[in-house]
Amino acid sequence: MRGPTEIVTEHIEIQTKGQSEVIDITERVASILHDARLMEGSATIFVAGSTASISTTEFEPGLQRDIPSMLNTLIPKEQPYHHDNTWHDGNGFSHLRATLMGPTLTVPFAKGKLLLGTWQQIVLIDHDNRSRHRSLVVQLIGQQ
Amino acid sequence: MRGPTEIVTEHIEIQTKGQSEVIDITERVASILHDARLMEGSATIFVAGSTASISTTEFEPGLQRDIPSMLNTLIPKEQPYHHDNTWHDGNGFSHLRATLMGPTLTVPFAKGKLLLGTWQQIVLIDHDNRSRHRSLVVQLIGQQ
Amino acid sequence: MRGPTEIVTEHIEIQTKGQSEVIDITERVASILHDARLMEGSATIFVAGSTASISTTEFEPGLQRDIPSMLNTLIPKEQPYHHDNTWHDGNGFSHLRATLMGPTLTVPFAKGKLLLGTWQQIVLIDHDNRSRHRSLVVQLIGQQ
Repeated sequence: MRGPTEIVTEHIEIQTKGQSEVIDITERVASILHDARLMEGSATIFVAGSTASISTTEFEPGLQRDIPSMLNTLIPKEQPYHHDNTWHDGNGFSHLRATLMGPTLTVPFAKGKLLLGTWQQIVLIDHDNRSRHRSLVVQLIGQQ
Repeated sequence: MRGPTEIVTEHIEIQTKGQSEVIDITERVASILHDARLMEGSATIFVAGSTASISTTEFEPGLQRDIPSMLNTLIPKEQPYHHDNTWHDGNGFSHLRATLMGPTLTVPFAKGKLLLGTWQQIVLIDHDNRSRHRSLVVQLIGQQ
Repeated sequence: MRGPTEIVTEHIEIQTKGQSEVIDITERVASILHDARLMEGSATIFVAGSTASISTTEFEPGLQRDIPSMLNTLIPKEQPYHHDNTWHDGNGFSHLRATLMGPTLTVPFAKGKLLLGTWQQIVLIDHDNRSRHRSLVVQLIGQQ
């Protein structure tokens, strides 16, 4: 018989550069899991804000350049968007990339370890058109 | 010591117009959370059906126009798809947009409040090519 | 009063062909749920690895062709990516498709059944440029 199900809600604070910069947050999520001493369950990583996303990738220099480039092909920065008429902050493309990719990721863990692939890292992608301070929620639902 | 973990499964019924219309459902999810009296945990919003998506955005008139427009650039409505040869219902583009974006979103909550950003709303995006009645599942896993 | 919350972590092993092949895994997830005898909760399906995705679609022959075709329009195979200069394995497009779509899906269940739409199947999409052996995690958090 396992112990009761516990819920742990923590935050990660990150300074970003924007422009769909890719930032590896795997170690910070793993550290929260380690400190919580939970063995089996799921970690949900959620970015508060509407111009950033959470996903996974192999975090290596090539893909760190390919991801923003791919996103700029799909949803170009230099293009007029109706959003920019609302606020005139020029980040319509940032919102569209964030809505397309989504703000959240759930990763199961077992035996106290995130069940990621060897070459798979959890990343924050900040699509905004300027440097931002980001607050991410990491919530664990699991058992000891 | 917190109370036991509770699971609450509710539904939201919505009439939509389709064509990747963006519908703000934040208040309806928050209302379910309020009534459930859970303080800490996660809300999973899931749309049953293969031509709609759940994501977040800043719900303002500009992006309400930009999101369908962006999706129509990526996956055009006026283009032949093999799906349309199967059912002849002309919504191949709707299925493709839904598969790309995904049908589900998980949002953590704490102190009884969804941990969304100030300008971040939960939205249903209905990609179908006609008006639809949609049934969404809102499932809370949390503690008092 | 329901029983305690239980967490069940299982794996699905699948041989794939790659090239964004779409594989229906609904029955295998439903079988794990059936064997776990949980009535209400959520199933998280997660693919370990950075070149595959989990989503839902209507699993019919037309869309099985349309999905890889749509992805090849958005993120073409025949195009140079910086990733390919890092490893020379030619699967930069595979990584980009996987990061865009995401590696995970959460599906609520109630009365022992996944709350999918009638024409909505859970699918693995393997974007790699070769045949792969894939290990998927299916984790249930629920109550009897």
